[in-house]
Amino acid sequence: MTREQLVEQIRKKQSFLCLGLDTEMSRLPEHLLQEEYPVFAFNRQIIDATHHLVIACKPNIAFYECLGTEGWKQLELTVAYIRSQYPEILIIADAKRGDIGNTSKKYAETFFKHLSCDAVTVAPYMGSDSVLPFLEYPGKWVILLALTSNRGADDFQLLGTGRHQRLFETILYKSMHWGNPDNMMYVVGATRASMLVKVREIIPDHFLLIPGIGAQGGDLGEVAEYGFNDQCGLIVNSSRAIIYADSTTRFAGAARGKAAEVQAEMAGILRRKGIS
Amino acid sequence: MTREQLVEQIRKKQSFLCLGLDTEMSRLPEHLLQEEYPVFAFNRQIIDATHHLVIACKPNIAFYECLGTEGWKQLELTVAYIRSQYPEILIIADAKRGDIGNTSKKYAETFFKHLSCDAVTVAPYMGSDSVLPFLEYPGKWVILLALTSNRGADDFQLLGTGRHQRLFETILYKSMHWGNPDNMMYVVGATRASMLVKVREIIPDHFLLIPGIGAQGGDLGEVAEYGFNDQCGLIVNSSRAIIYADSTTRFAGAARGKAAEVQAEMAGILRRKGIS
Repeated sequence: MTREQLVEQIRKKQSFLCLGLDTEMSRLPEHLLQEEYPVFAFNRQIIDATHHLVIACKPNIAFYECLGTEGWKQLELTVAYIRSQYPEILIIADAKRGDIGNTSKKYAETFFKHLSCDAVTVAPYMGSDSVLPFLEYPGKWVILLALTSNRGADDFQLLGTGRHQRLFETILYKSMHWGNPDNMMYVVGATRASMLVKVREIIPDHFLLIPGIGAQGGDLGEVAEYGFNDQCGLIVNSSRAIIYADSTTRFAGAARGKAAEVQAEMAGILRRKGIS
Repeated sequence: MTREQLVEQIRKKQSFLCLGLDTEMSRLPEHLLQEEYPVFAFNRQIIDATHHLVIACKPNIAFYECLGTEGWKQLELTVAYIRSQYPEILIIADAKRGDIGNTSKKYAETFFKHLSCDAVTVAPYMGSDSVLPFLEYPGKWVILLALTSNRGADDFQLLGTGRHQRLFETILYKSMHWGNPDNMMYVVGATRASMLVKVREIIPDHFLLIPGIGAQGGDLGEVAEYGFNDQCGLIVNSSRAIIYADSTTRFAGAARGKAAEVQAEMAGILRRKGIS
Protein backbone atom coordinates (compact mmCIF):
# COMPACT_ATOMS: atom_id res chain seq x y z
CA MET A 1 0.00 0.00 0.00
CA THR A 2 1.31 3.44 -0.91
CA ARG A 3 1.31 6.48 1.36
CA GLU A 4 -1.20 8.13 -0.99
CA GLN A 5 -3.59 5.19 -0.63
CA LEU A 6 -3.25 5.32 3.14
CA VAL A 7 -3.96 9.07 3.27
CA GLU A 8 -6.92 8.61 0.91
CA GLN A 9 -8.36 6.01 3.28
CA ILE A 10 -7.90 8.36 6.26
CA ARG A 11 -9.79 11.11 4.42
CA LYS A 12 -12.55 8.78 3.31
CA LYS A 13 -13.16 7.03 6.63
CA GLN A 14 -12.34 10.15 8.68
CA SER A 15 -10.31 7.92 10.94
CA PHE A 16 -6.71 7.11 11.75
CA LEU A 17 -7.62 4.20 14.01
CA CYS A 18 -5.78 0.89 13.99
CA LEU A 19 -7.62 -2.13 15.38
CA GLY A 20 -5.22 -4.19 17.52
CA LEU A 21 -6.04 -7.89 17.29
CA ASP A 22 -4.45 -9.11 20.56
CA THR A 23 -6.91 -11.97 20.62
CA GLU A 24 -6.68 -14.31 23.61
CA MET A 25 -8.42 -17.67 23.84
CA SER A 26 -9.11 -17.08 27.54
CA ARG A 27 -11.02 -13.87 26.81
CA LEU A 28 -13.25 -15.12 24.00
CA PRO A 29 -17.03 -15.10 24.47
CA GLU A 30 -17.99 -18.61 25.56
CA HIS A 31 -20.24 -19.36 22.59
CA LEU A 32 -17.26 -19.10 20.21
CA LEU A 33 -15.29 -21.87 21.89
CA GLN A 34 -17.26 -24.51 19.98
CA GLU A 35 -16.04 -23.14 16.63
CA GLU A 36 -13.27 -24.99 14.77
CA TYR A 37 -11.22 -21.77 14.73
CA PRO A 38 -12.49 -19.66 17.64
CA VAL A 39 -9.81 -16.96 17.44
CA PHE A 40 -10.48 -16.46 13.74
CA ALA A 41 -14.27 -16.51 14.30
CA PHE A 42 -13.84 -13.74 16.88
CA ASN A 43 -11.53 -11.69 14.67
CA ARG A 44 -13.79 -12.04 11.64
CA GLN A 45 -16.83 -10.75 13.48
CA ILE A 46 -14.88 -7.89 15.08
CA ILE A 47 -13.48 -6.88 11.67
CA ASP A 48 -16.87 -7.13 9.96
CA ALA A 49 -18.29 -4.86 12.65
CA THR A 50 -15.54 -2.22 12.56
CA HIS A 51 -13.93 -2.23 9.08
CA HIS A 52 -15.57 1.07 8.08
CA LEU A 53 -14.19 2.77 11.22
CA VAL A 54 -10.55 1.63 11.04
CA ILE A 55 -7.79 2.14 8.48
CA ALA A 56 -5.46 -0.57 9.78
CA CYS A 57 -5.58 -3.92 11.58
CA LYS A 58 -2.68 -5.06 13.73
CA PRO A 59 -2.56 -8.70 14.77
CA ASN A 60 -0.11 -9.06 17.67
CA ILE A 61 1.83 -12.13 16.59
CA ALA A 62 2.62 -13.33 20.13
CA PHE A 63 -1.05 -14.05 20.77
CA TYR A 64 -1.18 -16.43 17.79
CA GLU A 65 2.26 -18.02 18.19
CA CYS A 66 1.49 -19.10 21.73
CA LEU A 67 -1.11 -21.51 20.30
CA GLY A 68 1.46 -23.11 17.97
CA THR A 69 0.31 -24.36 14.56
CA GLU A 70 -3.32 -23.81 15.60
CA GLY A 71 -2.51 -20.17 16.27
CA TRP A 72 -0.58 -19.68 13.03
CA LYS A 73 -3.46 -21.21 11.09
CA GLN A 74 -5.84 -18.67 12.61
CA LEU A 75 -3.41 -15.83 11.96
CA GLU A 76 -3.23 -16.91 8.31
CA LEU A 77 -7.03 -17.09 8.11
CA THR A 78 -7.39 -13.65 9.72
CA VAL A 79 -4.93 -11.94 7.37
CA ALA A 80 -6.41 -13.67 4.31
CA TYR A 81 -9.91 -12.63 5.36
CA ILE A 82 -9.01 -8.95 5.75
CA ARG A 83 -7.02 -9.06 2.49
CA SER A 84 -9.97 -10.46 0.52
CA GLN A 85 -12.88 -8.62 2.17
CA TYR A 86 -11.37 -5.24 3.01
CA PRO A 87 -8.40 -4.75 0.67
CA GLU A 88 -8.15 -1.06 1.58
CA ILE A 89 -7.13 -1.86 5.19
CA LEU A 90 -3.42 -1.70 6.07
CA ILE A 91 -2.44 -4.97 7.74
CA ILE A 92 0.36 -4.58 10.29
CA ALA A 93 2.10 -7.66 11.68
CA ASP A 94 3.08 -6.57 15.18
CA ALA A 95 6.06 -8.88 15.46
CA LYS A 96 9.00 -6.74 16.64
CA ARG A 97 11.44 -8.92 14.75
CA GLY A 98 15.07 -8.15 13.89
CA ASP A 99 18.12 -10.39 13.43
CA ILE A 100 21.23 -10.71 11.24
CA GLY A 101 20.63 -10.17 7.52
CA ASN A 102 19.97 -13.73 6.37
CA THR A 103 17.49 -14.21 9.23
CA SER A 104 15.68 -10.87 8.86
CA LYS A 105 15.28 -11.87 5.21
CA LYS A 106 13.31 -14.93 6.36
CA TYR A 107 11.17 -12.84 8.71
CA ALA A 108 10.44 -10.47 5.83
CA GLU A 109 9.38 -13.47 3.72
CA THR A 110 7.13 -14.63 6.55
CA PHE A 111 5.18 -11.43 6.90
CA PHE A 112 5.28 -10.00 3.37
CA LYS A 113 5.23 -13.09 1.15
CA HIS A 114 3.73 -15.91 3.15
CA LEU A 115 1.17 -13.82 5.06
CA SER A 116 0.99 -10.84 2.65
CA CYS A 117 0.80 -8.24 5.39
CA ASP A 118 1.48 -4.62 4.40
CA ALA A 119 3.75 -3.71 7.31
CA VAL A 120 5.78 -5.27 10.10
CA THR A 121 7.12 -3.81 13.34
CA VAL A 122 10.91 -4.21 13.62
CA ALA A 123 13.30 -3.81 16.59
CA PRO A 124 16.32 -1.57 15.94
CA TYR A 125 18.96 -2.95 18.32
CA MET A 126 20.88 -5.00 15.72
CA GLY A 127 21.23 -2.06 13.33
CA SER A 128 20.95 -1.44 9.61
CA ASP A 129 21.51 -4.90 8.19
CA SER A 130 18.80 -6.27 10.49
CA VAL A 131 16.29 -3.79 9.03
CA LEU A 132 17.24 -3.46 5.35
CA PRO A 133 15.92 -6.90 4.24
CA PHE A 134 12.43 -5.75 5.22
CA LEU A 135 12.79 -2.69 2.96
CA GLU A 136 13.32 -4.73 -0.20
CA TYR A 137 9.59 -5.21 -0.82
CA PRO A 138 7.97 -2.47 -2.93
CA GLY A 139 4.71 -1.26 -1.42
CA LYS A 140 5.51 -2.75 1.99
CA TRP A 141 6.38 -0.92 5.21
CA VAL A 142 8.86 -1.24 8.07
CA ILE A 143 7.57 0.21 11.33
CA LEU A 144 10.68 0.66 13.47
CA LEU A 145 10.54 0.88 17.27
CA ALA A 146 11.66 4.31 18.40
CA LEU A 147 10.01 5.12 21.73
CA THR A 148 7.71 2.54 23.25
CA SER A 149 4.85 3.05 25.69
CA ASN A 150 5.95 0.69 28.46
CA ARG A 151 7.71 1.51 31.71
CA GLY A 152 10.89 -0.34 30.64
CA ALA A 153 11.30 2.10 27.75
CA ASP A 154 13.15 4.30 30.25
CA ASP A 155 15.87 1.69 30.76
CA PHE A 156 17.66 2.25 27.46
CA GLN A 157 15.61 4.33 25.00
CA LEU A 158 16.16 7.56 26.94
CA LEU A 159 19.88 7.10 27.57
CA GLY A 160 22.01 10.01 26.45
CA THR A 161 24.13 9.01 23.46
CA GLY A 162 26.19 12.15 23.04
CA ARG A 163 25.55 15.34 21.09
CA HIS A 164 22.43 15.99 23.21
CA GLN A 165 20.71 13.00 21.66
CA ARG A 166 18.91 10.28 23.51
CA LEU A 167 19.11 6.75 22.10
CA PHE A 168 15.68 6.90 20.43
CA GLU A 169 16.67 10.17 18.74
CA THR A 170 19.93 8.69 17.46
CA ILE A 171 17.93 5.76 16.12
CA LEU A 172 15.62 8.16 14.28
CA TYR A 173 18.53 10.19 12.83
CA LYS A 174 20.35 7.10 11.55
CA SER A 175 17.48 4.93 10.42
CA MET A 176 15.63 7.66 8.51
CA HIS A 177 18.27 7.24 5.80
CA TRP A 178 17.74 3.49 5.50
CA GLY A 179 14.37 4.07 3.88
CA ASN A 180 12.07 7.04 3.38
CA PRO A 181 8.60 8.24 4.42
CA ASP A 182 7.11 6.00 1.70
CA ASN A 183 8.37 2.75 3.20
CA MET A 184 9.13 3.44 6.86
CA MET A 185 7.07 4.43 9.87
CA TYR A 186 8.01 4.58 13.56
CA VAL A 187 6.46 3.35 16.78
CA VAL A 188 6.12 6.22 19.27
CA GLY A 189 4.34 5.48 22.55
CA ALA A 190 1.27 7.61 23.21
CA THR A 191 2.02 7.81 26.91
CA ARG A 192 4.88 10.13 25.95
CA ALA A 193 3.02 12.68 23.86
CA SER A 194 5.32 15.52 24.88
CA MET A 195 8.23 13.73 23.22
CA LEU A 196 6.31 13.77 19.95
CA VAL A 197 7.52 17.36 19.54
CA LYS A 198 11.11 16.13 19.44
CA VAL A 199 10.20 13.25 17.14
CA ARG A 200 8.46 15.61 14.71
CA GLU A 201 11.56 17.87 14.61
CA ILE A 202 13.59 14.90 13.36
CA ILE A 203 11.05 13.16 11.13
CA PRO A 204 8.32 15.61 10.09
CA ASP A 205 7.00 13.49 7.22
CA HIS A 206 6.96 9.89 8.43
CA PHE A 207 3.81 8.19 9.63
CA LEU A 208 3.91 7.24 13.31
CA LEU A 209 2.24 4.18 14.79
CA ILE A 210 1.00 5.15 18.23
CA PRO A 211 0.22 2.34 20.66
CA GLY A 212 -1.02 2.97 24.15
CA ILE A 213 -4.39 4.65 23.57
CA GLY A 214 -7.05 3.04 25.76
CA ALA A 215 -5.86 0.31 28.13
CA GLN A 216 -2.32 1.73 28.16
CA GLY A 217 -3.58 5.21 29.08
CA GLY A 218 -2.55 7.55 26.25
CA ASP A 219 -4.54 10.67 25.39
CA LEU A 220 -5.76 11.10 21.81
CA GLY A 221 -6.09 14.89 21.89
CA GLU A 222 -2.55 15.35 23.13
CA VAL A 223 -1.16 12.88 20.60
CA ALA A 224 -2.91 14.73 17.76
CA GLU A 225 -1.77 18.10 19.10
CA TYR A 226 1.93 17.19 18.95
CA GLY A 227 2.08 14.36 16.41
CA PHE A 228 -0.02 15.53 13.46
CA ASN A 229 1.51 16.50 10.15
CA ASP A 230 -0.15 17.79 6.98
CA GLN A 231 -1.11 14.28 5.87
CA CYS A 232 -2.32 13.32 9.36
CA GLY A 233 0.84 11.21 9.78
CA LEU A 234 -0.63 9.19 12.64
CA ILE A 235 -1.98 5.69 13.01
CA VAL A 236 -3.33 5.31 16.53
CA ASN A 237 -3.86 1.81 17.84
CA SER A 238 -6.41 0.52 20.29
CA SER A 239 -6.65 -3.16 21.11
CA ARG A 240 -8.18 -4.34 24.37
CA ALA A 241 -10.52 -1.36 24.87
CA ILE A 242 -12.25 -2.21 21.59
CA ILE A 243 -12.08 -5.97 21.15
CA TYR A 244 -13.00 -6.79 24.75
CA ALA A 245 -15.69 -4.14 25.16
CA ASP A 246 -18.19 -6.94 25.86
CA SER A 247 -17.78 -10.66 26.50
CA THR A 248 -21.22 -11.92 25.52
CA THR A 249 -22.80 -12.81 22.16
CA ARG A 250 -23.05 -9.03 21.62
CA PHE A 251 -19.24 -8.55 21.60
CA ALA A 252 -19.02 -7.43 17.96
CA GLY A 253 -21.64 -4.72 18.31
CA ALA A 254 -19.96 -3.50 21.48
CA ALA A 255 -16.63 -3.37 19.68
CA ARG A 256 -18.24 -1.34 16.90
CA GLY A 257 -19.64 1.05 19.52
CA LYS A 258 -16.22 1.61 21.10
CA ALA A 259 -14.50 1.98 17.72
CA ALA A 260 -17.19 4.45 16.62
CA GLU A 261 -16.53 6.60 19.73
CA VAL A 262 -12.82 6.80 18.91
CA GLN A 263 -13.51 7.38 15.20
CA ALA A 264 -15.89 10.24 16.04
CA GLU A 265 -13.19 11.91 18.12
CA MET A 266 -10.72 11.38 15.27
CA ALA A 267 -13.16 12.82 12.72
CA GLY A 268 -13.37 15.96 14.85
CA ILE A 269 -9.60 16.27 14.96
CA LEU A 270 -9.24 15.66 11.20
CA ARG A 271 -11.88 18.32 10.50
CA ARG A 272 -10.14 20.85 12.72
CA LYS A 273 -6.83 20.07 11.03
CA GLY A 274 -8.38 20.51 7.58
CA ILE A 275 -8.06 16.89 6.46
CA SER A 276 -11.47 16.09 5.09
CA MET B 1 17.88 -27.18 32.85
CA THR B 2 20.11 -25.97 35.70
CA ARG B 3 23.56 -24.47 35.28
CA GLU B 4 25.01 -27.53 37.05
CA GLN B 5 23.40 -29.86 34.51
CA LEU B 6 24.74 -27.76 31.66
CA VAL B 7 28.28 -27.78 33.06
CA GLU B 8 28.04 -31.53 33.68
CA GLN B 9 27.11 -32.03 30.04
CA ILE B 10 30.06 -29.89 28.91
CA ARG B 11 32.44 -32.01 31.00
CA LYS B 12 30.95 -35.28 29.82
CA LYS B 13 30.82 -34.47 26.10
CA GLN B 14 33.99 -32.34 26.21
CA SER B 15 32.19 -29.83 24.07
CA PHE B 16 30.56 -26.44 24.33
CA LEU B 17 29.14 -26.57 20.81
CA CYS B 18 25.62 -25.47 19.92
CA LEU B 19 24.11 -26.83 16.72
CA GLY B 20 22.28 -24.06 14.89
CA LEU B 21 19.26 -25.39 13.04
CA ASP B 22 18.83 -22.65 10.40
CA THR B 23 17.19 -25.17 8.12
CA GLU B 24 16.14 -23.88 4.69
CA MET B 25 13.88 -25.76 2.29
CA SER B 26 15.95 -24.55 -0.64
CA ARG B 27 19.15 -26.09 0.76
CA LEU B 28 17.79 -29.54 1.63
CA PRO B 29 19.24 -32.61 -0.09
CA GLU B 30 16.92 -33.44 -2.95
CA HIS B 31 15.96 -36.90 -1.73
CA LEU B 32 14.34 -35.38 1.37
CA LEU B 33 11.85 -33.28 -0.57
CA GLN B 34 9.53 -36.27 -1.00
CA GLU B 35 9.12 -36.58 2.78
CA GLU B 36 5.91 -35.33 4.41
CA TYR B 37 8.00 -33.09 6.71
CA PRO B 38 11.31 -32.53 4.89
CA VAL B 39 12.69 -29.91 7.30
CA PHE B 40 12.02 -32.16 10.27
CA ALA B 41 13.45 -35.19 8.44
CA PHE B 42 16.64 -33.21 7.81
CA ASN B 43 16.87 -31.95 11.39
CA ARG B 44 16.24 -35.39 12.86
CA GLN B 45 19.05 -36.98 10.88
CA ILE B 46 21.46 -34.13 11.65
CA ILE B 47 20.64 -34.37 15.37
CA ASP B 48 20.95 -38.17 15.42
CA ALA B 49 24.38 -37.79 13.80
CA THR B 50 25.72 -35.07 16.11
CA HIS B 51 23.90 -35.31 19.49
CA HIS B 52 26.98 -36.73 21.27
CA LEU B 53 29.12 -33.80 20.03
CA VAL B 54 26.84 -30.90 20.95
CA ILE B 55 25.43 -29.63 24.23
CA ALA B 56 22.75 -27.38 22.74
CA CYS B 57 20.51 -27.12 19.68
CA LYS B 58 19.31 -23.75 18.44
CA PRO B 59 16.48 -23.67 15.94
CA ASN B 60 16.37 -20.24 14.31
CA ILE B 61 12.66 -19.49 14.43
CA ALA B 62 12.62 -17.31 11.29
CA PHE B 63 13.47 -20.31 9.13
CA TYR B 64 10.36 -22.16 10.34
CA GLU B 65 7.97 -19.21 10.52
CA CYS B 66 8.55 -18.37 6.88
CA LEU B 67 6.82 -21.64 5.96
CA GLY B 68 3.74 -20.73 8.01
CA THR B 69 1.82 -23.52 9.76
CA GLU B 70 3.89 -26.10 7.87
CA GLY B 71 7.02 -24.56 9.35
CA TRP B 72 5.62 -24.35 12.87
CA LYS B 73 4.56 -27.98 12.70
CA GLN B 74 8.13 -28.97 11.80
CA LEU B 75 9.55 -26.76 14.54
CA GLU B 76 7.24 -28.48 17.05
CA LEU B 77 8.29 -31.91 15.74
CA THR B 78 11.98 -30.97 15.94
CA VAL B 79 11.81 -29.70 19.52
CA ALA B 80 9.69 -32.67 20.63
CA TYR B 81 12.17 -35.06 19.03
CA ILE B 82 15.19 -33.58 20.77
CA ARG B 83 13.27 -33.40 24.06
CA SER B 84 12.34 -37.09 23.94
CA GLN B 85 15.50 -38.58 22.42
CA TYR B 86 18.25 -36.41 23.89
CA PRO B 87 16.83 -34.85 27.06
CA GLU B 88 20.29 -33.66 28.17
CA ILE B 89 20.53 -31.19 25.26
CA LEU B 90 19.73 -27.52 25.94
CA ILE B 91 17.15 -26.33 23.40
CA ILE B 92 17.47 -22.65 22.55
CA ALA B 93 14.70 -20.93 20.59
CA ASP B 94 16.58 -18.26 18.64
CA ALA B 95 13.66 -15.89 18.40
CA LYS B 96 14.97 -12.47 19.52
CA ARG B 97 11.55 -11.55 20.89
CA GLY B 98 10.68 -8.69 23.24
CA ASP B 99 7.54 -6.57 23.66
CA ILE B 100 5.43 -4.93 26.38
CA GLY B 101 4.78 -7.13 29.42
CA ASN B 102 1.47 -8.76 28.43
CA THR B 103 2.93 -9.63 25.01
CA SER B 104 6.30 -10.91 26.22
CA LYS B 105 4.26 -13.12 28.56
CA LYS B 106 2.68 -14.72 25.48
CA TYR B 107 6.07 -15.18 23.80
CA ALA B 108 7.35 -16.85 26.98
CA GLU B 109 4.34 -19.18 26.90
CA THR B 110 5.10 -19.98 23.25
CA PHE B 111 8.67 -21.05 23.77
CA PHE B 112 8.61 -22.41 27.33
CA LYS B 113 5.14 -23.96 27.66
CA HIS B 114 3.91 -24.71 24.17
CA LEU B 115 7.28 -25.74 22.69
CA SER B 116 9.07 -26.62 25.97
CA CYS B 117 12.37 -25.11 24.91
CA ASP B 118 14.93 -24.45 27.67
CA ALA B 119 16.01 -20.98 26.57
CA VAL B 120 14.96 -18.14 24.31
CA THR B 121 16.94 -15.23 22.87
CA VAL B 122 15.43 -11.85 23.81
CA ALA B 123 16.03 -8.32 22.47
CA PRO B 124 16.74 -5.68 25.14
CA TYR B 125 15.49 -2.46 23.52
CA MET B 126 12.13 -2.31 25.34
CA GLY B 127 13.71 -2.70 28.77
CA SER B 128 13.02 -4.61 31.97
CA ASP B 129 9.30 -5.31 31.69
CA SER B 130 9.85 -6.76 28.21
CA VAL B 131 12.32 -9.29 29.65
CA LEU B 132 10.97 -10.14 33.11
CA PRO B 133 8.02 -12.30 31.91
CA PHE B 134 10.55 -14.72 30.40
CA LEU B 135 12.28 -15.03 33.80
CA GLU B 136 9.20 -16.36 35.58
CA TYR B 137 9.81 -19.96 34.50
CA PRO B 138 11.99 -21.98 36.92
CA GLY B 139 14.68 -23.94 35.10
CA LYS B 140 14.34 -21.83 31.93
CA TRP B 141 16.79 -19.28 30.52
CA VAL B 142 16.70 -15.84 28.96
CA ILE B 143 19.57 -15.20 26.55
CA LEU B 144 19.67 -11.43 26.16
CA LEU B 145 21.28 -9.73 23.16
CA ALA B 146 24.30 -7.73 24.26
CA LEU B 147 26.75 -7.48 21.38
CA THR B 148 25.83 -9.13 18.11
CA SER B 149 28.10 -10.40 15.35
CA ASN B 150 26.68 -8.47 12.41
CA ARG B 151 27.97 -5.28 10.82
CA GLY B 152 24.91 -3.30 11.94
CA ALA B 153 25.84 -3.95 15.58
CA ASP B 154 28.04 -0.85 15.27
CA ASP B 155 25.04 1.38 14.60
CA PHE B 156 23.72 1.45 18.16
CA GLN B 157 25.34 -1.18 20.40
CA LEU B 158 28.66 0.67 20.55
CA LEU B 159 27.24 4.15 21.16
CA GLY B 160 28.65 5.90 24.21
CA THR B 161 25.97 6.17 26.88
CA GLY B 162 27.84 8.24 29.46
CA ARG B 163 30.12 7.23 32.32
CA HIS B 164 32.53 5.60 29.83
CA GLN B 165 29.96 2.93 29.00
CA ARG B 166 28.87 1.86 25.58
CA LEU B 167 25.22 0.84 25.12
CA PHE B 168 25.91 -2.90 25.30
CA GLU B 169 27.82 -2.37 28.56
CA THR B 170 24.97 -0.35 30.06
CA ILE B 171 22.62 -3.15 29.04
CA LEU B 172 24.83 -5.69 30.83
CA TYR B 173 25.08 -3.56 33.99
CA LYS B 174 21.33 -3.01 34.22
CA SER B 175 20.01 -6.34 33.08
CA MET B 176 22.33 -8.47 35.24
CA HIS B 177 20.10 -7.51 38.17
CA TRP B 178 16.91 -8.65 36.44
CA GLY B 179 17.97 -12.26 36.82
CA ASN B 180 21.14 -14.07 37.79
CA PRO B 181 23.72 -16.43 36.27
CA ASP B 182 21.32 -19.33 36.86
CA ASN B 183 18.59 -17.99 34.58
CA MET B 184 20.25 -15.50 32.23
CA MET B 185 22.89 -15.73 29.53
CA TYR B 186 24.02 -13.15 26.98
CA VAL B 187 24.64 -13.15 23.24
CA VAL B 188 28.13 -11.86 22.48
CA GLY B 189 29.26 -11.98 18.85
CA ALA B 190 32.39 -14.02 18.22
CA THR B 191 33.63 -11.62 15.59
CA ARG B 192 34.36 -9.23 18.51
CA ALA B 193 36.46 -11.49 20.72
CA SER B 194 38.50 -8.58 22.06
CA MET B 195 35.36 -7.11 23.59
CA LEU B 196 34.88 -10.30 25.57
CA VAL B 197 37.45 -8.92 28.01
CA LYS B 198 35.14 -6.03 28.81
CA VAL B 199 32.11 -8.33 28.97
CA ARG B 200 33.89 -10.64 31.42
CA GLU B 201 34.76 -7.67 33.67
CA ILE B 202 31.05 -6.92 34.00
CA ILE B 203 29.59 -10.44 34.07
CA PRO B 204 32.28 -12.95 35.07
CA ASP B 205 29.85 -15.75 35.91
CA HIS B 206 27.17 -15.74 33.22
CA PHE B 207 27.18 -18.14 30.33
CA LEU B 208 27.63 -16.45 26.95
CA LEU B 209 26.06 -17.64 23.71
CA ILE B 210 28.56 -16.95 20.97
CA PRO B 211 27.25 -16.90 17.41
CA GLY B 212 29.47 -16.23 14.45
CA ILE B 213 31.86 -19.20 14.49
CA GLY B 214 32.14 -20.70 11.01
CA ALA B 215 30.21 -18.94 8.25
CA GLN B 216 30.25 -15.65 10.16
CA GLY B 217 34.02 -15.77 10.62
CA GLY B 218 34.72 -15.90 14.37
CA ASP B 219 37.83 -17.60 15.80
CA LEU B 220 37.30 -20.29 18.45
CA GLY B 221 40.74 -19.99 20.04
CA GLU B 222 40.39 -16.26 20.54
CA VAL B 223 36.86 -16.62 21.93
CA ALA B 224 38.04 -19.20 24.45
CA GLU B 225 41.08 -17.09 25.38
CA TYR B 226 38.99 -14.10 26.38
CA GLY B 227 35.57 -15.56 27.14
CA PHE B 228 36.24 -18.61 29.33
CA ASN B 229 35.38 -18.71 33.00
CA ASP B 230 35.93 -21.46 35.57
CA GLN B 231 32.80 -23.32 34.45
CA CYS B 232 33.61 -22.85 30.74
CA GLY B 233 30.86 -20.22 30.55
CA LEU B 234 30.62 -20.43 26.78
CA ILE B 235 28.16 -21.93 24.34
CA VAL B 236 29.54 -21.50 20.84
CA ASN B 237 27.16 -21.84 17.95
CA SER B 238 27.78 -23.11 14.45
CA SER B 239 24.95 -23.44 11.98
CA ARG B 240 25.61 -23.42 8.26
CA ALA B 241 29.18 -24.78 8.40
CA ILE B 242 27.85 -27.95 10.02
CA ILE B 243 24.36 -28.56 8.67
CA TYR B 244 25.24 -27.77 5.05
CA ALA B 245 28.61 -29.56 5.00
CA ASP B 246 27.27 -31.79 2.22
CA SER B 247 24.11 -31.64 0.10
CA THR B 248 23.83 -35.30 -0.95
CA THR B 249 22.39 -38.37 0.78
CA ARG B 250 25.55 -38.30 2.92
CA PHE B 251 24.69 -34.95 4.52
CA ALA B 252 24.28 -36.29 8.06
CA GLY B 253 27.67 -38.02 8.10
CA ALA B 254 29.31 -34.89 6.73
CA ALA B 255 27.63 -32.82 9.45
CA ARG B 256 28.95 -35.25 12.06
CA GLY B 257 32.44 -34.90 10.58
CA LYS B 258 32.32 -31.09 10.80
CA ALA B 259 30.86 -31.13 14.31
CA ALA B 260 33.53 -33.62 15.39
CA GLU B 261 36.28 -31.29 14.14
CA VAL B 262 34.92 -28.42 16.22
CA GLN B 263 34.32 -30.68 19.23
CA ALA B 264 37.94 -31.96 19.06
CA GLU B 265 39.21 -28.38 19.14
CA MET B 266 36.88 -27.66 22.06
CA ALA B 267 38.05 -30.76 23.94
CA GLY B 268 41.62 -29.50 23.62
CA ILE B 269 40.65 -26.12 25.02
CA LEU B 270 38.65 -27.67 27.89
CA ARG B 271 41.60 -29.92 28.76
CA ARG B 272 44.02 -27.00 28.80
CA LYS B 273 41.60 -25.03 30.97
CA GLY B 274 41.27 -27.96 33.39
CA ILE B 275 37.62 -28.70 32.71
CA SER B 276 37.58 -32.45 32.22
